[in-house]
Amino acid sequence: MTGKREEAHQEGLTVSKEKDFSEWYTQVVQKADLADYSPVKGCMIIKPHGYSIWEQIQQYFNERLRALKVKNAYFPLFIPESFFKKEMAHAEGFSPEVAWIANKEEGERLAVRPTSETVMYDAYANWIRSHRDLPLRINQWANVVRWETKQTRLFLRTREFLWQEGHCVYATQEECTKETEQYLQEYQKLCEELLAIAVLPGRKSESERFAGAMDTYSIDGIMPDGKSLQMGTSHQLGQGFGKAFGISFLGEDGKKHIPWQNSWGVSTRLLGAVIMVHGDDKGLVLPPRAARQKAVIVPIYKEDEKDTVLKEAKKIEKSLSEYGVFVDDRDGYTPGWKFNEWELKGIPLRIEIGPKDIAKKQVVLVRRDTSKKTPIAISDLGKVVPQQLEEMHHEMLKRSRAMLTSHITSVKTWKELVSAINNHQVVKAFWCGKKSCEEKVKAEASGARTINLPLEQKGSGLCAICTQKATLTAYFGKVY
Amino acid sequence: MTGKREEAHQEGLTVSKEKDFSEWYTQVVQKADLADYSPVKGCMIIKPHGYSIWEQIQQYFNERLRALKVKNAYFPLFIPESFFKKEMAHAEGFSPEVAWIANKEEGERLAVRPTSETVMYDAYANWIRSHRDLPLRINQWANVVRWETKQTRLFLRTREFLWQEGHCVYATQEECTKETEQYLQEYQKLCEELLAIAVLPGRKSESERFAGAMDTYSIDGIMPDGKSLQMGTSHQLGQGFGKAFGISFLGEDGKKHIPWQNSWGVSTRLLGAVIMVHGDDKGLVLPPRAARQKAVIVPIYKEDEKDTVLKEAKKIEKSLSEYGVFVDDRDGYTPGWKFNEWELKGIPLRIEIGPKDIAKKQVVLVRRDTSKKTPIAISDLGKVVPQQLEEMHHEMLKRSRAMLTSHITSVKTWKELVSAINNHQVVKAFWCGKKSCEEKVKAEASGARTINLPLEQKGSGLCAICTQKATLTAYFGKVY
Repeated sequence: MTGKREEAHQEGLTVSKEKDFSEWYTQVVQKADLADYSPVKGCMIIKPHGYSIWEQIQQYFNERLRALKVKNAYFPLFIPESFFKKEMAHAEGFSPEVAWIANKEEGERLAVRPTSETVMYDAYANWIRSHRDLPLRINQWANVVRWETKQTRLFLRTREFLWQEGHCVYATQEECTKETEQYLQEYQKLCEELLAIAVLPGRKSESERFAGAMDTYSIDGIMPDGKSLQMGTSHQLGQGFGKAFGISFLGEDGKKHIPWQNSWGVSTRLLGAVIMVHGDDKGLVLPPRAARQKAVIVPIYKEDEKDTVLKEAKKIEKSLSEYGVFVDDRDGYTPGWKFNEWELKGIPLRIEIGPKDIAKKQVVLVRRDTSKKTPIAISDLGKVVPQQLEEMHHEMLKRSRAMLTSHITSVKTWKELVSAINNHQVVKAFWCGKKSCEEKVKAEASGARTINLPLEQKGSGLCAICTQKATLTAYFGKVY
Repeated sequence: MTGKREEAHQEGLTVSKEKDFSEWYTQVVQKADLADYSPVKGCMIIKPHGYSIWEQIQQYFNERLRALKVKNAYFPLFIPESFFKKEMAHAEGFSPEVAWIANKEEGERLAVRPTSETVMYDAYANWIRSHRDLPLRINQWANVVRWETKQTRLFLRTREFLWQEGHCVYATQEECTKETEQYLQEYQKLCEELLAIAVLPGRKSESERFAGAMDTYSIDGIMPDGKSLQMGTSHQLGQGFGKAFGISFLGEDGKKHIPWQNSWGVSTRLLGAVIMVHGDDKGLVLPPRAARQKAVIVPIYKEDEKDTVLKEAKKIEKSLSEYGVFVDDRDGYTPGWKFNEWELKGIPLRIEIGPKDIAKKQVVLVRRDTSKKTPIAISDLGKVVPQQLEEMHHEMLKRSRAMLTSHITSVKTWKELVSAINNHQVVKAFWCGKKSCEEKVKAEASGARTINLPLEQKGSGLCAICTQKATLTAYFGKVY
């Protein structure tokens, strides 16, 4: 087992998560082969290991979409400039970030889609005639472009990213609001059940709403550095786009009505959250349900034991194929080198097998998150592997929830608010609802913003910012 | 059952496939809800029914990719202009079709990718160091943009389309050529096994090669109008891109080598082939394996029988859920209206159920392609439905093969060649291999082109164009 690669430097992380979180993140993204910078400033290459997480998200969510009767479709990348101008708030919100095509023909400029409301609703206006055509529920998986001027970071803020955007149309406001909230719940479930990440569901303040929305709901996670990360949004769009794009339907009452709409999305940003929330000083830790390859088998042998050990390893690989288990049978790498590599890449379980194990009809199972080693009878693997994966998922979610909670401080006064935010906390506080208070927070509390307002609002007190009477509760904090 | 919609006009096709093939195609695409024109000239909206076929293709092909150890990834939409210029033949081939971004910053122009060789190989140059890194096999599913000046047609020629592009790197020419051919075989399998379409696999003539390729392989179908449709290509790229992008690896011999590369792709154009090959005067006919919803249950009842019939229909729906079977229980539409709708949309099987059927514990099963009606015991459905779907697949493929064969005429002389092409045939002929002969065909035989050269070349004779000695056999014909 002393191959040429023996002397090769194991490219592990050179900083700890605790000491330099930002540099640690960059190293995990690149060294775990998740993504790479592109020669085009602010754009990223999603490498196969990173992309496989996105595919797991797609698979999970496509199943949910089918259950919710949302259908996938695909709309054009290019949007005529005039479409943007139809809904003014939307136009103002997005114009600074739009990349334009130098159109080869005469005629108006074409935008590269930053989001697809306008191009989709122009089509909806042609498709929708009667109340029988409603609800219309369409989703697309697509790339979008927003010409960020802020510093870009892989997965968290890039000029091009991948996302899904759902766009539904309803006959009534009630139905629209109900489903707008339902999609938010779906996002929370996606984060918790697939990615093992606890989030704060809530409603955005007016100033943080999506451009053109009546109401925006969001889920936000809190990262280990105390900054919150918006991980998904669902917008109740009201009738504004319907009016702007001339969408109407003939109701059961025989009259023309303008329908209600929502739009909602999650993006490759979720991968950034997975890295930040679960990773450790050895690298990425993949939440088991989001890992296509849930376990790696590392065979350990001297040259004359190779055939026996590999044969047994392959048998186990085959019996656990539904979990995407694979044998790392590469020559010229030591078992230790392989351990490090798969730890860096975050494979949830490692199965070690050597001649002594085979003699005892067992393997050693190692969990990526706890490093706990357990000898397991080979005949029990079919039962134990799924058990350990489930256990790991639930414990990771629990730790994520604990981390979320530990980063929230309830405050009553301005002094407490500022101090908590400077102490890398998200604060929960009563708020009067005035924009001036939000602006004061941004200006005087290290740039903190209104994250969101918990869905269940209860109690009343004094606004932590201006001390006036308040019936709203909000989360404030630094944000990604 | 006399709902409001009773009087609504059934929007079936108004032309026959035989009489006006081009208009028939346009009507099927739009009336079967497959795609719609976009306000941006030459771009398309892929509607849910059309997109679901693309999803079936993705699912089938992703499984094949996994078996072939090809990994999915995602590369940026934008490509710096300087990248294009690195490989001259590639640059010349694509430049006229590139859409450019009006870049907001100083610096070079950015292209919207027409294909991703350049942006991917720039990254490969960083990733590949040693023979241990080879073969590298990466695929991406993406949108690409080619600013077509020819007339665009939904699915067949649009300025933006969806595709997969595989890009692999090998240590040796042999391995590269072998896999370049293997991917072509995979495309042939995809067409035959999933889409039930017979194709002609072959090698392109030099003048029809991909810009920058050493060799291009293709599969081409022949459409009912006698024009051939290129449905997939696989390019042996040689070492040209490797040299241009500075890709090299340290071989086992301790020396630096330039690797060999291939690229290969199929696109949403395949949907155009499905429509043209299988459709009929009632609309689309979906090949069963490419249909997510393989059967529709249409309940037939008078108002007082509704509950009984729907209950039974739902039971059948549930028992056949693995085939995506669904009940059309919409009120206000007659069964006949529903029959027409699902025929237009090409659902492979229709299951009719009414009170008399229930009394006899049976349903009536109707095949979309043959209209053949068969009474089937409800208890046999679980066995008969998959049987009928498989039978339908094989018969559709057989018919497609017969159509392909019937459109090919072997010719010996120039006169025969011109006459066959004018007679809507693809011709098979000996060819000396000279470009001047290809040009003569294009200029004097209704613009026909060299489709491809069959993989198995045998025999020799006189070139049908110039009468000189020829050892090559080629297909010539009008093309999409």
